[in-house]
Amino acid sequence: MWAWRLHASLPRTATSLEAADWLKVLRWEEVELPKLPEGWARVRLLAAALNRRDLWITLGLYPGIQYPAILGSDGCGEVVAIGSGVPSEWLGQRVLLNPSLNWGQDERVQGERYHILGMPSWGTLAEYVDVPAENLYPMPAYLSPVEAAAIPLAGLTAYRAVFVQGGLQPGEKVLIPGIGGGVAVWALQLAVAAGAEVWVASSRPEKIETAHRLGAKGGILYTEKNWAENLLQRAGSFDLIVDGVGGEVFSAYQLLLAPAGRVVIYGATRGNPPSFDLRRLFWRQNRIIGSTMGSPRNFSDLLHFLTQHQIRPLIEHTYPLTALPQALARLWRGDQMGKIILHPV
Amino acid sequence: MWAWRLHASLPRTATSLEAADWLKVLRWEEVELPKLPEGWARVRLLAAALNRRDLWITLGLYPGIQYPAILGSDGCGEVVAIGSGVPSEWLGQRVLLNPSLNWGQDERVQGERYHILGMPSWGTLAEYVDVPAENLYPMPAYLSPVEAAAIPLAGLTAYRAVFVQGGLQPGEKVLIPGIGGGVAVWALQLAVAAGAEVWVASSRPEKIETAHRLGAKGGILYTEKNWAENLLQRAGSFDLIVDGVGGEVFSAYQLLLAPAGRVVIYGATRGNPPSFDLRRLFWRQNRIIGSTMGSPRNFSDLLHFLTQHQIRPLIEHTYPLTALPQALARLWRGDQMGKIILHPV
Repeated sequence: MWAWRLHASLPRTATSLEAADWLKVLRWEEVELPKLPEGWARVRLLAAALNRRDLWITLGLYPGIQYPAILGSDGCGEVVAIGSGVPSEWLGQRVLLNPSLNWGQDERVQGERYHILGMPSWGTLAEYVDVPAENLYPMPAYLSPVEAAAIPLAGLTAYRAVFVQGGLQPGEKVLIPGIGGGVAVWALQLAVAAGAEVWVASSRPEKIETAHRLGAKGGILYTEKNWAENLLQRAGSFDLIVDGVGGEVFSAYQLLLAPAGRVVIYGATRGNPPSFDLRRLFWRQNRIIGSTMGSPRNFSDLLHFLTQHQIRPLIEHTYPLTALPQALARLWRGDQMGKIILHPV
Repeated sequence: MWAWRLHASLPRTATSLEAADWLKVLRWEEVELPKLPEGWARVRLLAAALNRRDLWITLGLYPGIQYPAILGSDGCGEVVAIGSGVPSEWLGQRVLLNPSLNWGQDERVQGERYHILGMPSWGTLAEYVDVPAENLYPMPAYLSPVEAAAIPLAGLTAYRAVFVQGGLQPGEKVLIPGIGGGVAVWALQLAVAAGAEVWVASSRPEKIETAHRLGAKGGILYTEKNWAENLLQRAGSFDLIVDGVGGEVFSAYQLLLAPAGRVVIYGATRGNPPSFDLRRLFWRQNRIIGSTMGSPRNFSDLLHFLTQHQIRPLIEHTYPLTALPQALARLWRGDQMGKIILHPV
């Protein structure tokens, strides 16, 4: 088959990365498909999607990178072959892939053998991908393959963060900083569908505008002076903050949290917070809760929730798979809001 | 009645505080008892206990201090008078006082009218104290008044931190830093009784020795170089850390926490942590959970748990109430381990 293979990392200090830069480390090349292991299935991809994880690996900002790697955690396609022990009903079915491999038996946390589809195991930026049959889920019938491919990694992360770790209740007030990122947009759509009052924060007015169209009640720009105080005045305090930003923005959350309020952290694109007020935390009975990816049960519950509410993903742009360098360059610029999808030609 | 009244605060920068220093701001004086409000009861105290809260207020390190104040959150005694609407069966009963006043309806967090017995409402360092009848609980029959007085504030805080916020399960491994403090000792005894494997940390070897006698499996000295790494090697990682210390010790917890592990914070005697690693938090699905005091249900559950397990409090020393300055000086030195009790003469 043909696949995009990563052979080295780009300098992490790069300030501008155009399509030609990505081509220095990524090659579209033919690779031999391995023998399908017992319990695994082979999927011909109909669509794949990008995540920031793909960027970080390409920039060498990820632990345990192995070369050559086939990236890509999101994919949907058609089952074209099965290993021994896999029910034959899967053959020919359209499936969505759960990118959480080997989660393990504990709903609270992934086990030691856990990893994410797309490095070290081969990912979805290719013509075919092999996965354990337990990671196959029937593609939601109300969506196209391009739409379905926008779900897995970001949707799963958002679902676990909002409902499982965050324990969102209908009518609660939610803040989603860093709106525009894949997980943040899914968190917004899920929380709105669950009956929450959702506010967003961003550094770009057009992203707040899009969030508003997706059901957000309001938004605030970080660039506003005293943004946290202004938000508190306009929106009141928050029961739940779902955060992938961290850094100095995190330090503002303790002001914004209601008594018994929770912050669920699924990422830290701006790094660690410069300060953390323990006294305010314990006196207000607040919680800071870590969340990453999700269990098979979380993935199944996510697909059920999306179908029940007929939620359609926000897609920014689709590219042919062969234009991966252009797609990565766009993701790296960070001005997009929805998912970037790749489809075979 | 006679009571100790606080008329001003001591300088918070004091490095040595003897009994004579406390007498500069505390006076043993006669005060007139007010008319009992509807729904309240008057209790003649048989024993009271000190908490660090009493020190902080005396040193002016507490929000909203009102003078003159009668301190003291812990007390047990005999009901000698009742306001209208209070069942007459309370009269003459020996009672333990729940120091959480006006918790409110939400089990998750205290309401806006919440405060702790002993400033601004008059506390237990006196001959009598008036409390709402809902704060009266029958004194556990297996304990003496001096023992029972060691329970309320610290026992309630520990119970909520360990079981309600911390969700301790039998067989889990627990770390209790700052052993020696009232809440920490109660947390140790509660967790041991619940079937957990408990480790402690302290800067004093004799406190670790006492913890061992109370059921701790082992302990570590902060003064040991690389204490956290050494503890990890000896004990393995922890499911639950129950912390009132904070500061640079808090930063070590992320190393010590197991996947899905929790830190419950009920205090921060060493202030805020110098660093907080968000990536480790989310990847390991850890939680940082604030906890303070407890609800009426928590207090009732605590007394039930103590009685069921026939747990006796650790008492360091008893003083006559008139020797409060000596008792405060001892608490301020910080070398004691159990509760300091005061009894009327």
